[in-house]
Amino acid sequence: MKNWPNSASSANSPVRVEGEKPFILVEERVRYSETDQMGVAHNKNYFEWFEIGRTEFIRQKKIPYKEIEKLGYYLVVVEAFCRYKRPLRYDDSFFIRVELDELTPKKAVFSYLLLTKDEKKPIASGYTVHIVTDSKGTVTVLPEEILGKIKAVY
Amino acid sequence: MKNWPNSASSANSPVRVEGEKPFILVEERVRYSETDQMGVAHNKNYFEWFEIGRTEFIRQKKIPYKEIEKLGYYLVVVEAFCRYKRPLRYDDSFFIRVELDELTPKKAVFSYLLLTKDEKKPIASGYTVHIVTDSKGTVTVLPEEILGKIKAVY
Amino acid sequence: MKNWPNSASSANSPVRVEGEKPFILVEERVRYSETDQMGVAHNKNYFEWFEIGRTEFIRQKKIPYKEIEKLGYYLVVVEAFCRYKRPLRYDDSFFIRVELDELTPKKAVFSYLLLTKDEKKPIASGYTVHIVTDSKGTVTVLPEEILGKIKAVY
Amino acid sequence: MKNWPNSASSANSPVRVEGEKPFILVEERVRYSETDQMGVAHNKNYFEWFEIGRTEFIRQKKIPYKEIEKLGYYLVVVEAFCRYKRPLRYDDSFFIRVELDELTPKKAVFSYLLLTKDEKKPIASGYTVHIVTDSKGTVTVLPEEILGKIKAVY
Repeated sequence: MKNWPNSASSANSPVRVEGEKPFILVEERVRYSETDQMGVAHNKNYFEWFEIGRTEFIRQKKIPYKEIEKLGYYLVVVEAFCRYKRPLRYDDSFFIRVELDELTPKKAVFSYLLLTKDEKKPIASGYTVHIVTDSKGTVTVLPEEILGKIKAVY
Repeated sequence: MKNWPNSASSANSPVRVEGEKPFILVEERVRYSETDQMGVAHNKNYFEWFEIGRTEFIRQKKIPYKEIEKLGYYLVVVEAFCRYKRPLRYDDSFFIRVELDELTPKKAVFSYLLLTKDEKKPIASGYTVHIVTDSKGTVTVLPEEILGKIKAVY
Repeated sequence: MKNWPNSASSANSPVRVEGEKPFILVEERVRYSETDQMGVAHNKNYFEWFEIGRTEFIRQKKIPYKEIEKLGYYLVVVEAFCRYKRPLRYDDSFFIRVELDELTPKKAVFSYLLLTKDEKKPIASGYTVHIVTDSKGTVTVLPEEILGKIKAVY
Repeated sequence: MKNWPNSASSANSPVRVEGEKPFILVEERVRYSETDQMGVAHNKNYFEWFEIGRTEFIRQKKIPYKEIEKLGYYLVVVEAFCRYKRPLRYDDSFFIRVELDELTPKKAVFSYLLLTKDEKKPIASGYTVHIVTDSKGTVTVLPEEILGKIKAVY
């Protein structure tokens, strides 16, 4: 795992380090309803947290995901993976670190790291692969306008 | 709580007892992901179970809820209540007993009992109040055709 | 609904207005996974948001709920109610306003208002009733030490 | 994807085909609360369905998962993957096909197929990797007694 400057710890700020892909950090906290009888956050919630991170990543691009859907384009999940390393407990705060690994008119790949708030130790890592569809679920391509905004580095 | 004939214990069968409203019983089981760190089913899940029961109640009426939505009518929840009496644990089986308390062109009220599988002891009780809207969320009335089917006793 | 000073809009700050019960405001945002096919937040999520508000209310009291559980006391939900007034959509921000209506050694009642972020229009209102149990689910009473902290007004 | 005899379509029955690993089929139905605003089942639910399938697979082995936990052993998820092929909609019925791919005292790997009810077309496929821990989360090994039961073919 890479290091990044301390300034990155302010959640929701896009961060750019020389020679690296830009990423964002979002802070979240484990809800009581997200724990299970083992006393830890249930595995399915990590995919919700990935999605929250993805939403914030795209929001930084001046074109919130809900606007993309209003224009008739959907980034449908076709693959999702998570590796769990450390348990999360009720009320724990943590960071979701999101990076855009690949973006073409037909496909997007996001990768995620969940990190402890204080020491930034890895909690989990994963990725999601998305294809582009219209509102009826038919495969299509993202127009250049949207593509350019998401790809922009600033 | 009322008694009902043993034949009622076959889930999903509509039951009619003289002088009583018809009801249905649906069997469900607590998922691992529905437990919380207290080791019991989390309070929010009961509202999902109420909804499963409601879906099955309407299915018995020869007009599944998804068909009602396809016709452009939505039974939007405007009130929901639950009283919790006994905890439910992982893998517990239980019955959802659903009754239609009120139905007018503008409004529906369903009431629910959750019961232990073996002794039919009360686990929880509650109700939901619904208004009728179109696909844009504007308040409307249920047409006579749908109303008649849901009201039919058989 | 009552008015409150603008300063209250900073989330998570306890607010005290002359002659009123103290309350807190927590800001939340609708997750994609919390919407349903009607395009609005599903009714069950409101009870999760109530819980988030409750957690923050107790955190203000210098005794986070997780500490109360570590001491062996659980505030078990025995009743939950919600009235839905305005729909919430994906990515909408809103406030959860939480008030402690009643607190005795045996029982706590919290009430909630969900409010639009900009104009503070009511989205939903509700309450939860809690009894006190030990880790085995046996009814008990909250010790004076915890009770005093939660009741403290500052 | 493999074929299997029609008798397999009765849910929850373990099936054994010459030269293949035994598997089970569990029937589930999409809940309204499991849909999102795209009108399809949200990606996180598939991991809950995998878990339901896993629970039923182990139940067939005469040692329900809750009994394994009571004996002090936990099959903690350390990896989860899903590939999504066809959307699932509200009220759709489908099969979860579960197979045990690997089982050692330290590790278990389950694989899953979600299939349409009528034509058994693939909806999704995936797997979960589990390690064995005690109730405190310390890595341990499954005793021979439990291992033998889960491995038994009948």
